[in-house]
Amino acid sequence: MIKKEYVSIYKDYLLDRVVPFWLEHSLDLEFGGYFTCLQRDGSVFDTDKFVWLQCREVWTFAMLYNNVEQRKEWLDAALMGADFLLRHGRDNQGSWYFSLDRKGLPLMEAHSIFSDCFAAMAFAQLYKATQDRKYSEVAKNTFEIILQRKETPKGRFSKTYPGTRDIKGFSLPMILCNLVLEIEHLLDESLVESVLREGVHEVMDIFYKPDLGVILENVALNGSIVDSFEGRLVNPGHGLESMWFVMDIARRWEDTELVSRCTEIVLQLLEFGWDAKYGGIFYFRDIKGFPPQQLEWDQKLWWVHLEALIAVVKGYEMTGDTRLEVWIARLHEYIWNHFVDPEHGEMFGYLKRDGALLVDSKGGKWKGFFHVPRALFQLWKLMEKIVEKQEFVLDETKPNR
Amino acid sequence: MIKKEYVSIYKDYLLDRVVPFWLEHSLDLEFGGYFTCLQRDGSVFDTDKFVWLQCREVWTFAMLYNNVEQRKEWLDAALMGADFLLRHGRDNQGSWYFSLDRKGLPLMEAHSIFSDCFAAMAFAQLYKATQDRKYSEVAKNTFEIILQRKETPKGRFSKTYPGTRDIKGFSLPMILCNLVLEIEHLLDESLVESVLREGVHEVMDIFYKPDLGVILENVALNGSIVDSFEGRLVNPGHGLESMWFVMDIARRWEDTELVSRCTEIVLQLLEFGWDAKYGGIFYFRDIKGFPPQQLEWDQKLWWVHLEALIAVVKGYEMTGDTRLEVWIARLHEYIWNHFVDPEHGEMFGYLKRDGALLVDSKGGKWKGFFHVPRALFQLWKLMEKIVEKQEFVLDETKPNR
Repeated sequence: MIKKEYVSIYKDYLLDRVVPFWLEHSLDLEFGGYFTCLQRDGSVFDTDKFVWLQCREVWTFAMLYNNVEQRKEWLDAALMGADFLLRHGRDNQGSWYFSLDRKGLPLMEAHSIFSDCFAAMAFAQLYKATQDRKYSEVAKNTFEIILQRKETPKGRFSKTYPGTRDIKGFSLPMILCNLVLEIEHLLDESLVESVLREGVHEVMDIFYKPDLGVILENVALNGSIVDSFEGRLVNPGHGLESMWFVMDIARRWEDTELVSRCTEIVLQLLEFGWDAKYGGIFYFRDIKGFPPQQLEWDQKLWWVHLEALIAVVKGYEMTGDTRLEVWIARLHEYIWNHFVDPEHGEMFGYLKRDGALLVDSKGGKWKGFFHVPRALFQLWKLMEKIVEKQEFVLDETKPNR
Repeated sequence: MIKKEYVSIYKDYLLDRVVPFWLEHSLDLEFGGYFTCLQRDGSVFDTDKFVWLQCREVWTFAMLYNNVEQRKEWLDAALMGADFLLRHGRDNQGSWYFSLDRKGLPLMEAHSIFSDCFAAMAFAQLYKATQDRKYSEVAKNTFEIILQRKETPKGRFSKTYPGTRDIKGFSLPMILCNLVLEIEHLLDESLVESVLREGVHEVMDIFYKPDLGVILENVALNGSIVDSFEGRLVNPGHGLESMWFVMDIARRWEDTELVSRCTEIVLQLLEFGWDAKYGGIFYFRDIKGFPPQQLEWDQKLWWVHLEALIAVVKGYEMTGDTRLEVWIARLHEYIWNHFVDPEHGEMFGYLKRDGALLVDSKGGKWKGFFHVPRALFQLWKLMEKIVEKQEFVLDETKPNR
C-alpha cells in the first residue's frame, strides 16, 4: 500500500514548484539556450552552457509537452534551446561539444559521447512534439555517430595506455538502454531490438555481479572484476537508475522474470548503498570497503535518491513486491526532508554525509532541468497507477459487493 | 617567540613515526618501486604505481640521505624506486607515464607534465646522493622535455577548444619555481636565472591579484581574470605552498622586499582560506563565493596545512613578523589535533569540513611519501634556526652581560 496523497505531492511539486522555476530563471532570452548555474533563488551565477544540460533541458520541456499538456510556453522553451544547439552545438564531424560560452562559442571539445546521447534524446523528443523532420534527422545522425564511437568512446582523449588493463564503463550501455527506447520511433525495429538485447545483456550479465550484489562501474573487456580503484567502484545511484531503464524494456518485452531480477537487484543495491548511520545513499563505494578515489564519495546527491525512488516505485508497480514498500517510504522521507526547498522550489543537489547542505545552489555544471522533473513526472504517473490498482482492489473486496 | 619544543616535535615525528612507516610498508621487494595505497596501519590496499608518487618517494629518500644523515637504508630505498622508474616509467618520447601496474606495465599515458617535473626532481636529488651521471642525465633530459612541453602541457589530451577562452594554470609556474632550485646544480646559471625570473613574475605579478588578496588557479593568457568556474577558483594551499618556494628564491636573491611581499600574501591567503567556523583551510574557494565545481571544496587536506605552516614559519624565520606567530600556533594545533596519528604514525590525509576523518588511509593515488616528510624536515630545520636566534637574543639581553 502507498499513500494516495503521494500522487498529488509529486504532480504538484513538478508543475507548481519546478517547471516554473526553470521557465523563469533558465531561459537566456538574449543569446538563446539556457542558464543552468542557478543559485538557490534562481539567480544566475555563471553563463557557460554545458551541452549535456542544454540537451537535457530541451528533452524535458519537449517531454512535458508530449506527455503532460501541450503548453505553448513549454514547446517554445524547448525550441529555443534546440535552435541554440543547432547553431552552435556540433563540431565539423557532427559530434556535440562538451561546453559553449554564453554566445555559443565552443569551450570544450566533443570529448564526451554522452553529449551525443543527450542530444539524440533531445531531438527525438522534440520531433515527437513537432513532427519536424529537421529534428529527427539530427537525432538519427547523432545516433549513428554514437554507434560508431561506442567501442572507443573517448577517442583521442583517452588517457588509458592500450593493452595493459583495458576496461569498459557501465555508463554507456546503461544510457543506451534508455536512449534506444527514447528514439525507437526513428530507428529500424531490428536495430532497436539488437541494441536493447545487447544493452540488457551488458547490464544484467556483465556489470551486475550476483556474488557481490552490486553493479560495477567498470569491468575488464571480458567482464571480469579488476582489482583497482576503477574496478572496485560502485555508484549505487547509477545502478538503481539502470534498473528502471531495464524494467521499461522488460515491460516492452512482457518479460516478468526480468522485472523480478531487476527488483532483486534494486533491493541489493539499496542495502549496499544505504548509509545506516545517517540515512541516504552514498555517491560511491568501493566493493572492498577501501577509500574510493572520489573525495565526494560519502555525499548524498539529489539524482541518486530520485532515480532510486523511481526504480523502487516502478518495481512495486510492476510486481507488487511488498519488500519495496519500506524503501518507498524511506526514500520519500529522505527526499522531502533534505532535497526539497519549500521556499524557492526546485531541489537542492548536494548534501554532506549527515544530510546538511553542501551548497544551496539549484543548478550548475552537472545539475540542470532533468533528473528532478523526469523523476517527479515518472513518480506522479507510477503512483497514479498504483493508487488506481489499490482502489480497484479495495473496491473488489468490499463486503457489500 | 615560538616554543623551543617545536624543534624536537617535528624532528622526532619525522624520524621516528613517518620515515619508518614508509620504509616498513611501502617498498615492493618483489617487483621494485613503492606501494603508496596504504591503510591506517600501513597494510597495502592497492598495488598500482602512480608515477608522481613513485618519483616523489625517490626524491624524499634521497633528500633525507643528503640532508639528514647518510643512512644506507634510505639510499637503498631511493635507488630501488629509481631503478623501477628507469626500467618502466617513460614512453618512447622520454615523457613519464602517469601510472603503472605493480610490475611496471603502463596504465595511463604520459598526459601529465607534473610526472616529468617530479621525475626531474627525483633524479637530480639522487644524483646529489650518488654522483652517478646516469641520474643527472635523466634529470636533464626530462627538464628539457618540460621546457618543450610547458606552453601546451596537456598536449593531445587537452579538451579545451582553442581560441575561445584560452587560460593558463598556476600549478606549472609554481612547480617550476621549486624545480629549478632543486636541479640548479645540473643547469646553466643563465637558464636557472631566466626560469626563476619568469616563474616569480608569473606567480607574483600574474596569478596573484592584489585587489582580491588571492592567488588564482587559472587566468587568461593575458593575465586577466576569467569569470568562469576555472577562473574564479582559488586553492589556498597551492598559493601558500608557492609562497615558500618564492621565499627560497628571494633568499637566494637576497631580496628582502620580495620576502615581505610573500609574507603579506601568506597572511591574505590564510584569511581567505581559513574556515572561521570549524578551523582549518578550505581545499577550494570561489572568489565570488559561488559553489566551486569540486564537491570536495570544503574538505581539509593534510598537505594544505603542512605547506601553509612551512610558508608561515619560513616567513617568520626570514622577517620576524609577529603577525605570523598566531598562525604558527593555530596551524600547529590544527595539524597535531587532526592529522597526526599517535597510534600508527604518518598522518591522515583527508578530513571533512568539521575536522572528522573522511578516510583513515595513510596513502593512495595522490598521498605518498612526500608532503609530510618534506614539511616535517623543513619545519624542524626552520624551527631550529628560529630557536637559535631567540636564544641568542635572550643571551644578548641578559642583564648580567
